[in-house]
Amino acid sequence: MLKYEMIVNDLQKRIMNEEFEETRKLPTEEKLIEEYGVSRNTIRNAIKILMNLGIIYPVQGSGMFVRAPKKKGTVYLNSTRGVTMDNPGNKIINKLLDIQIVEADEKLSEQMNCKVGTPVYYLKRLRIVDGIPYALERTYYNKEIVPYLGKEIAEGSIFNYLKDDLKISFGFADKYLTAIKLSKEDAALLELEENDPAIMINDNIHLSNGQLFNTSNIIYNYQTTNFYSVAK
Amino acid sequence: MLKYEMIVNDLQKRIMNEEFEETRKLPTEEKLIEEYGVSRNTIRNAIKILMNLGIIYPVQGSGMFVRAPKKKGTVYLNSTRGVTMDNPGNKIINKLLDIQIVEADEKLSEQMNCKVGTPVYYLKRLRIVDGIPYALERTYYNKEIVPYLGKEIAEGSIFNYLKDDLKISFGFADKYLTAIKLSKEDAALLELEENDPAIMINDNIHLSNGQLFNTSNIIYNYQTTNFYSVAK
Repeated sequence: MLKYEMIVNDLQKRIMNEEFEETRKLPTEEKLIEEYGVSRNTIRNAIKILMNLGIIYPVQGSGMFVRAPKKKGTVYLNSTRGVTMDNPGNKIINKLLDIQIVEADEKLSEQMNCKVGTPVYYLKRLRIVDGIPYALERTYYNKEIVPYLGKEIAEGSIFNYLKDDLKISFGFADKYLTAIKLSKEDAALLELEENDPAIMINDNIHLSNGQLFNTSNIIYNYQTTNFYSVAK
Repeated sequence: MLKYEMIVNDLQKRIMNEEFEETRKLPTEEKLIEEYGVSRNTIRNAIKILMNLGIIYPVQGSGMFVRAPKKKGTVYLNSTRGVTMDNPGNKIINKLLDIQIVEADEKLSEQMNCKVGTPVYYLKRLRIVDGIPYALERTYYNKEIVPYLGKEIAEGSIFNYLKDDLKISFGFADKYLTAIKLSKEDAALLELEENDPAIMINDNIHLSNGQLFNTSNIIYNYQTTNFYSVAK
């Protein structure tokens, strides 16, 4: 994890612990440089990310103010970060339900913008936060970009593996949300009832050059999960 | 409507009509300046908005490419724009179900960041797109900021009224999404079944100085509406 990311995480935790509750104001840039012992650039990167996430907002001449929901389990729709960062301080278990290499058929190749027959990893995981099923995830990774994915990686944070080990730099993600009725099978995995409501997100992550390398279908537990989006 | 907004609308329509389908590439800045007969600044404003909406993305050295969903009825979560702009070319009817002035109680005053007793407009509207119920909206407007709201405004675009007539400049919006089961009453209005799934958005719009002036609770028809968010 890079320095500014650790600061983003730490400031989020401090905000959630209501450290700035009284004034709703973040410490000044100077103060943060001193507290974390890092460069101005690093602090500015962290501030920029917290702003993009909608966690803080600037008031001209007065500094940065806290604005975001403090609730845990909130999915930040403006970010490509994963479940781990959406649940700081919580215990996350990833139960691997399926892993296999498939060949992209016509539909998948179109969806992933690759040739028919391209080898693709298919993973099905149940994400569990503090013992409660949080999301059911079905993901395809282009094997030409992600050459290896094993059980031990899938049970950890794939997101961190891609970023830290494979040095893959995400460009942007397209997220499509719909409300659905849960199938009997998916409801059982999420410990909910058939036909219960769910938010389903189709998440497509692109590299900086626009190439798609990962498409996910994620079904969230409506009882534990809420979503946040910042609009301009 | 400002010039760059008209260009945003028009380019969206052209994208939806698949005019750029073959190359997925938008005309160059020079070409757009010529086509629309406007300044470079106006085109750049329009391009920036289309980028923020996730409709186009830049590829270094090659120009702007089309990336967005072409589906009508898509709600852009990164934007404070209204139903009218999410449904270009469709017939929108706003059925006013309730309008009254209430005094903010403790809960509402906390939510709207105003004093207890502040007069607040309460509106309940059914938004109908091409004859199909699209969303059920319950909105509170601080009367100190929006002094008048009548039936004829509520049945048009309140968004345009606030922006064009009252010259209110939006700063940012916080949107909280959850999946819910429809109540019997709301299901009847949306022509759906009780307990059907729905995405409920709590939308809080702030002025540029961070002051909240409007809080909405919007319940969407899961059969007609999908959502789109761009993440970085």
